[in-house]
Amino acid sequence: MAQLRIALAQVNPTVGDLEGNAGLIVEWSRRAADAGAHLVAFPEMALTGYPVEDLALRTSFVEASQRALERLARRLADEGLGDLPVITGYLDRRTVGLPVRSSRSGQPAGAPLDAAAWLHGGEVLVRSAKHHLPNYGVFDEYRIFVRGDRLPVVRVHGVDVATVICEDLWQDGGPVSVTGGSGAGLLLAVNASPYERDKDDVRLDLCAERAREAGCALAYVNMVGGQDELVFDGDSVIVGPDGALLARAPKFTEHLLVADLALPAAGSPAEPGRTPVDAPDGTTITIDRHVLSPGTLPAYPVEPQAVAEPLDDLAEVYAALVLGTRDYVRKNGFRSVVLGLSGGIDSALVATIASDAIGPENVHAVLLPSRYSSEGSVVDAEDLVKRQGLNSRIVPIADMVEAFEKHLDLHGLADENLQARIRANVWMALSNEHGHLVLTGGNKSELATGYSTLYGDSAGGFGPIKDVFKLTVWELARWRNTQAGVVSPFLHPFAQEPIPEAIIVKEPSAELRPGQRDRDTLPEYTVLDPLLTDYVERDMGRDALVAAGHDPSLVERTIRLVDLAEYKRRQYPPGPKITPKNFGRDRRLPITNAWRERT
Amino acid sequence: MAQLRIALAQVNPTVGDLEGNAGLIVEWSRRAADAGAHLVAFPEMALTGYPVEDLALRTSFVEASQRALERLARRLADEGLGDLPVITGYLDRRTVGLPVRSSRSGQPAGAPLDAAAWLHGGEVLVRSAKHHLPNYGVFDEYRIFVRGDRLPVVRVHGVDVATVICEDLWQDGGPVSVTGGSGAGLLLAVNASPYERDKDDVRLDLCAERAREAGCALAYVNMVGGQDELVFDGDSVIVGPDGALLARAPKFTEHLLVADLALPAAGSPAEPGRTPVDAPDGTTITIDRHVLSPGTLPAYPVEPQAVAEPLDDLAEVYAALVLGTRDYVRKNGFRSVVLGLSGGIDSALVATIASDAIGPENVHAVLLPSRYSSEGSVVDAEDLVKRQGLNSRIVPIADMVEAFEKHLDLHGLADENLQARIRANVWMALSNEHGHLVLTGGNKSELATGYSTLYGDSAGGFGPIKDVFKLTVWELARWRNTQAGVVSPFLHPFAQEPIPEAIIVKEPSAELRPGQRDRDTLPEYTVLDPLLTDYVERDMGRDALVAAGHDPSLVERTIRLVDLAEYKRRQYPPGPKITPKNFGRDRRLPITNAWRERT
Repeated sequence: MAQLRIALAQVNPTVGDLEGNAGLIVEWSRRAADAGAHLVAFPEMALTGYPVEDLALRTSFVEASQRALERLARRLADEGLGDLPVITGYLDRRTVGLPVRSSRSGQPAGAPLDAAAWLHGGEVLVRSAKHHLPNYGVFDEYRIFVRGDRLPVVRVHGVDVATVICEDLWQDGGPVSVTGGSGAGLLLAVNASPYERDKDDVRLDLCAERAREAGCALAYVNMVGGQDELVFDGDSVIVGPDGALLARAPKFTEHLLVADLALPAAGSPAEPGRTPVDAPDGTTITIDRHVLSPGTLPAYPVEPQAVAEPLDDLAEVYAALVLGTRDYVRKNGFRSVVLGLSGGIDSALVATIASDAIGPENVHAVLLPSRYSSEGSVVDAEDLVKRQGLNSRIVPIADMVEAFEKHLDLHGLADENLQARIRANVWMALSNEHGHLVLTGGNKSELATGYSTLYGDSAGGFGPIKDVFKLTVWELARWRNTQAGVVSPFLHPFAQEPIPEAIIVKEPSAELRPGQRDRDTLPEYTVLDPLLTDYVERDMGRDALVAAGHDPSLVERTIRLVDLAEYKRRQYPPGPKITPKNFGRDRRLPITNAWRERT
Repeated sequence: MAQLRIALAQVNPTVGDLEGNAGLIVEWSRRAADAGAHLVAFPEMALTGYPVEDLALRTSFVEASQRALERLARRLADEGLGDLPVITGYLDRRTVGLPVRSSRSGQPAGAPLDAAAWLHGGEVLVRSAKHHLPNYGVFDEYRIFVRGDRLPVVRVHGVDVATVICEDLWQDGGPVSVTGGSGAGLLLAVNASPYERDKDDVRLDLCAERAREAGCALAYVNMVGGQDELVFDGDSVIVGPDGALLARAPKFTEHLLVADLALPAAGSPAEPGRTPVDAPDGTTITIDRHVLSPGTLPAYPVEPQAVAEPLDDLAEVYAALVLGTRDYVRKNGFRSVVLGLSGGIDSALVATIASDAIGPENVHAVLLPSRYSSEGSVVDAEDLVKRQGLNSRIVPIADMVEAFEKHLDLHGLADENLQARIRANVWMALSNEHGHLVLTGGNKSELATGYSTLYGDSAGGFGPIKDVFKLTVWELARWRNTQAGVVSPFLHPFAQEPIPEAIIVKEPSAELRPGQRDRDTLPEYTVLDPLLTDYVERDMGRDALVAAGHDPSLVERTIRLVDLAEYKRRQYPPGPKITPKNFGRDRRLPITNAWRERT
């Protein structure tokens, strides 16, 4: 056996910020060196950020990434880190075999690669690229990448270390399938895998399975941070060849996971070179061997392994929402947010998430009472403002409504929507005047059923609870109140419960007409949310929904509401994905769609 | 040689309307039978409409399509059309070899197929599916389909007729590559190929090339009609084995193209059955032979071939915008539209497109003068209303602006945007009150540079000129004025020029502050539009743009404007795609994106 101290740098890069991300890689490489690590690994596409979407098709961006990688290798050496092997993801392109100028299926323009490289001694030692390209859910990688066909195996202090990229773990065949035969003692997987509720154990199980398949330890480094609708949750892990968990990083926060591993010393003498091997998926993978340091290290004192405590379910969801919101604000250059505070649960939770994400001093609440607002609404909203120390102002909208009504003869829904849109005008005006980002308060139940006003309550730059069903909104609010005083990267240390109990227990209402209640027009959320989950997230048809026990007439009504609201969802701002299927890249349906589920 | 009269039914189905589309197929099959055709072919996915997007992943929809196909076969026979071979596209799924429950790359849930079938004698004779799946531009077919591997060859009156589907023509290998060896005398391609400016000759050239490759005549039937952001333009063609054009349908309109063809009689005796053949793309294609009628027909009088006159470029673009708008309105169940009429060229052109699409009696214009509106704007807008006979009303917004300003202290851009949003509130209120669809007046130059107000002038359900650069807006307006009195499916027969000359020649302005002109903040459109075309549609980087002759400082400023406006575009309504790359499915960039092109 040979000893090796490895470091997994679970960092938070920004899409497109090549210089900033390179700086991040240098900084965390230094931390790894300071910790005595013998190699450090960064996530998939850490140099460019991920996902870059169609930026991969822009030659200038691909070339900038290639140049940035070369510069990064030199800079690491210039700063005294040349001896530390640094593995990082970046964007590259294939230069041989694919003279492609315009996009065709499987041949995107410029033949871009989702690549990873070993940097050492000021140079790029070896490059490889993702073999299996995800093209489902939120991923469109057949559109923008060609597949890689190489497994780098690099000998570090007598241990052969192989590297693969993300989806290569998730699908059979490809480079992972030839790792066992390569004699590697450690398989290093670089990832950018987004958070989904209940996904963590799937990931650990997968790592364990692939470790057993490859017959060696597996180190999995994941990205952390928010990027538009995705939240990368970190949770980097190391498992032994038997699949046993050895070390685990905390979720949703940048972290350097350092672990001392006892690994099999490479058996055969070091022979650099390339060997093509047939993989079970019918492709040929070239094993590309390099030697950095052939001999094993003398024994050294082993540090204890770190296994982060898991977060409970609601803590995890809440952290995802806070991180997703914080990074959208920060990475888009904002310092403050504005939102309408209605006295209802949705805007109360969004305000709290915003406080936790960027500090209550940067949150600007606007109370916009109308003639239909209850006394309690304003009082409750003011209570929340006071508990959290938000900036706030009251802008009554009655005059504005009247100015419109003087010219327009409006009834029912048109009149209700007018109020919602006037409110949006106010917060958009404050956004334009003061440079705040507007946060939108709609939840997934609303978004699904179209129970919102286009350009009204749905208006804004980011929707923190867009992917959160109403029942979960209440659960999160109650959970958050249990955390008063707790200090964490996701929680502002409020001295008292940040959300007034009155807001949590009140009957949900949009307050757009006298005595309006959600349940006048929608079923109870305890009935609605499970039905929406089955229809939206599980794609179940009418008959399957009825067979699953949902009320037939409710099924038909709900399907119709969901289908008809597609045009509204298409104009909704992004928000953090927390479920297996969000409204966004995950679910792509035509607006013009005459299909109605029938018996 | 053998004679055969074939009919290509260039029809306009609606996505999801299985019953309506089946009715369309029966109706046009009867027309083909009445015209004495020996077979009739319908477009790709004619039974379901196209594209169905993620509906393909919904089991209930796939099964409904399968049942609808069987019902259609029986209905055709019941209505006396059982002897006519009917070829139509529909949605199917693979049932063997792929037990897939959840989506993975290349294995979408349920293994859906973009299929085509021959219907005859009340039954489904043979089924096949698209082999090459487009996954670039607006297409995401690796996400939703698995590939087909069969080439049906059906003997009809002694001629072997092979069928392929759309993308199978566009890429090498696959079923087209084995058609020559199959001995087919006619290759029938069923398509749903959307309009792009200047694409028509590419399509004809492709058909000619594939006909020569297959060594037989080729009949190409395309869909017609609007579906969200796509407009299918028809333009069905028949070419001889030498690639010579034999017949061509008009564009943008439903049409039955009937042609008498002299085709080689099948040489070998009829032997139904399946033969696997290796294709040059490394796949195996099974030739699936059937015989409907082995003997050739006695000679009959040949009808002259029809070759539709091509439309000129602007007529074609205009027809695409009218058809796209008409179908979005109609297929989404609207009968009328409302739009703000500013006196500027953009809203004037949109109003005219709307009049041409659904009749001026169904167009409701709102004039919303503010304190900054010029006298001329109202006069010009009223002139347009009168020329076209639109419904109109004037709603001055000064009172509403004041009602907001009383509560909010707004300056500069915030104040300008407020006016734009108040206008949007008015037309949205009229939409809600009267059930009109709101049309949005933004053009592609505006959308690219972010020169519009979110929830203001960008608000609405459909943007007819979303993909039209400003210079083309003027060209289209001038062209439309030359067509006064012309009767066509795309032009209302206005007695005089529908757009006042004063609107066409005036200096562009948003009129949101005193004396505002576009060129105070944007370069002249003669400079801007070519630069936007190179950056947006050709993905050229900063250096390439400068090398192409664009002014360096303008390049940097424009790139920045375009990149920063991504969040606005994401909330914009759909509009008809007319260029090689629209803002929509065609161009997918992150909102959070720190990449700035630099030297």
